Amino acid sequence: MEREIRVGLCGCGVIGEGLVKALHEHADIIRARTGAPIRLTAAADKDPARLDLVRSHDTSVALLDDAFEIPKRDDVDIVVELIGGVEVADRLVREALQAKKHVVTANKALLAERGASLFALAETNGCDLYFEAAVAGAIPVIRVIRESLASDRFLSVRGIINGTSNYILSSMANEGAAFEEALKAAQEAGFAEADPTLDITGGDAGHKLALIAGLAFGAHVLPSQIPTEGIDQVDPRDIQYARNFGYVIRPLAVAQRVDSGALDLRVHPALVPQSDPLAHVDGALNAVAIQGEMVGPSFLSGLGAGAAPTATSVAGDIVDIARNLLAGAPMRTWYLPVEGEQRIQPLADLSSRYYLRFSVRDESGVLASLSGKLGNAGISIEKMVQDVESGAEGTATIAILTHRAREGDLRASLAAIDETHLTTAPTHLIRIVQ
Amino acid sequence: MEREIRVGLCGCGVIGEGLVKALHEHADIIRARTGAPIRLTAAADKDPARLDLVRSHDTSVALLDDAFEIPKRDDVDIVVELIGGVEVADRLVREALQAKKHVVTANKALLAERGASLFALAETNGCDLYFEAAVAGAIPVIRVIRESLASDRFLSVRGIINGTSNYILSSMANEGAAFEEALKAAQEAGFAEADPTLDITGGDAGHKLALIAGLAFGAHVLPSQIPTEGIDQVDPRDIQYARNFGYVIRPLAVAQRVDSGALDLRVHPALVPQSDPLAHVDGALNAVAIQGEMVGPSFLSGLGAGAAPTATSVAGDIVDIARNLLAGAPMRTWYLPVEGEQRIQPLADLSSRYYLRFSVRDESGVLASLSGKLGNAGISIEKMVQDVESGAEGTATIAILTHRAREGDLRASLAAIDETHLTTAPTHLIRIVQ
Repeated sequence: MEREIRVGLCGCGVIGEGLVKALHEHADIIRARTGAPIRLTAAADKDPARLDLVRSHDTSVALLDDAFEIPKRDDVDIVVELIGGVEVADRLVREALQAKKHVVTANKALLAERGASLFALAETNGCDLYFEAAVAGAIPVIRVIRESLASDRFLSVRGIINGTSNYILSSMANEGAAFEEALKAAQEAGFAEADPTLDITGGDAGHKLALIAGLAFGAHVLPSQIPTEGIDQVDPRDIQYARNFGYVIRPLAVAQRVDSGALDLRVHPALVPQSDPLAHVDGALNAVAIQGEMVGPSFLSGLGAGAAPTATSVAGDIVDIARNLLAGAPMRTWYLPVEGEQRIQPLADLSSRYYLRFSVRDESGVLASLSGKLGNAGISIEKMVQDVESGAEGTATIAILTHRAREGDLRASLAAIDETHLTTAPTHLIRIVQ
Repeated sequence: MEREIRVGLCGCGVIGEGLVKALHEHADIIRARTGAPIRLTAAADKDPARLDLVRSHDTSVALLDDAFEIPKRDDVDIVVELIGGVEVADRLVREALQAKKHVVTANKALLAERGASLFALAETNGCDLYFEAAVAGAIPVIRVIRESLASDRFLSVRGIINGTSNYILSSMANEGAAFEEALKAAQEAGFAEADPTLDITGGDAGHKLALIAGLAFGAHVLPSQIPTEGIDQVDPRDIQYARNFGYVIRPLAVAQRVDSGALDLRVHPALVPQSDPLAHVDGALNAVAIQGEMVGPSFLSGLGAGAAPTATSVAGDIVDIARNLLAGAPMRTWYLPVEGEQRIQPLADLSSRYYLRFSVRDESGVLASLSGKLGNAGISIEKMVQDVESGAEGTATIAILTHRAREGDLRASLAAIDETHLTTAPTHLIRIVQ
């Protein structure tokens, strides 16, 4: 009799429901491409309404209210963890691996915080632990990094990997909305959670970047080690000035090896030149731009969230594990950092170009004084615009693009300037990515 | 003792040399990520100078002048075929598979013409036959289609998959050069072969599209079945008119399922709107845009040719096969069309928007007469520009974008118009992609 690969689903929210639909509606395609049928045998959720949705797509599934029953079942080969959060998911994945079940998860927080120990547990138990959907939704960044580019030395990975942030910054740019307005519109359109904190502060992108840094640079990095700034400090004026200079502001995550050998890891809004493919990644799209020593520039974009796109990545992992099982060979792929502990470059040591917005008194000599002070600190100005209209009574705005500078030096100079009578509000800084 | 995976290289041209460098210089990375060392044990080429280059990178390789010696060697697990062409490569790959060697090839012509029989032979012999480098160089389109999107139903795959053509059309657009000039410059810059026929006629893209159609749509298609037009008919005026209408002309390959259930497959230059990511893929870059029922829009770009980028894809396949071997499980992946023979839509049945360039007599009433004739044939005009300056004495040019029309109807109408006294030269047609 033909072997069947059996899946147990923990968590039947929107992605879970998308997966149920995919496995059911695309069963013929999946069977032909896998070499055996893949069947959802059990699904668990605390919410009976969600289980009703599962039943509406596929009546053959055993429905349970306790996710911890799934790893115990004999009719489950692969456990799919879509419950989210860290503690409960951690316990569930451990129980699954200890029961010799293979695991697919979309849980970036879990893997960023506990990945090292979970991957080790998977290895001990001879099980696969796949997680394509944890980073950038439908974009196959995990598979591309660890399979397609397995022979290459990675130079940099830069990405727009939080769709909510990109949606908000895009609306601010396209409609001139302020941050709070754009956030509210994103929530109403279903592109931001009721509690959007993790998205807009950069925390979610930090989780994903920790996973990328592990795979691409062999670094064991915790999210807390990654300098992270959210998009909530971006002002509509910054977007306007950036546009006039030829740039778009995007929520970026950056991982790159710098000359000192350290890893430069950071999450923050950044000015992206119009000539960069990332500048054209609008709305809820995600994108990842990889530079490899051999491969050169490699660019991937697609939907970073949503039920069907994310479920596609989960289902791709299930098919991959199913092929491993049919071939009798789980554990084909490397998970763990191979290059050990690594030094993360402090932000003060970053060499970058910067966008600066000064609020100054509208008096003669201010600009000369300002550029003199920057010049004395070794900060050289590439472009500058002074805008007397936009400030409040008696003040003006000066927007500057700098040449490359060391961030520590620049911040010291800005702090000194903000202590003088020249500026009327703290100076605003946004990094430029090139 | 740790197992070692041993590679034999047939053909030491630029990609072969790139591979030798990669396997040697990145040996540590590859070993860590694969779980075992991968070593080039033998390399063959008829040209001693090329073997000298291999030796200059890695002195431990056995050098041979006959590629057919490689499959016979006991110290080779994976045969890499980089000799190109169809007949000799076909014989070599067959001998390798019959000798139970796994095979990696970058040979699109070979697989497009003989793939069905070669994949069957691989299956019979329990061997892997991988070919990521055969389509779009460094872009992981094969792996993404058959692994990441394995659960999805493909709606369309559109790509810029011939770097030479894109380089030429880009120079024509950026520098206003005529086709012959741009081709010559591309040859001088190393972006076009001495004999560029296969690239500029669309033949090379047709080979690649046949492979994509097989994987994405389960279709067994020979290159000769794909309607193919080269870029040599594109005139600098077309590029200029397209730009004024908001479009870029790109060399496209398209595979999509149409409403009738047939496959729409074609290779031709096309007008791409500025809002499409393919419009920004300039120069020698390649790109593939995939639409899936679940995944939505997925976009990949990167270098489509060149030694190091292409060698990265070859090396990625070698690592993948090495992982299969270490896990004791080759043959994890589907190769063959799973949906059997399929109907290819005749171009006459294509429903598309079109760009038309008419050369007409510079007389009053010509435009009204032309648009009347198009209207009578059910062809509706979206945008139009008449340009009295650009034609020769007494003639004018009319450029038109049509709404969606059936190509057969449009061509019949154009043929009728060209038979009247209205036009002074055959009307030029380029499809618009949306």
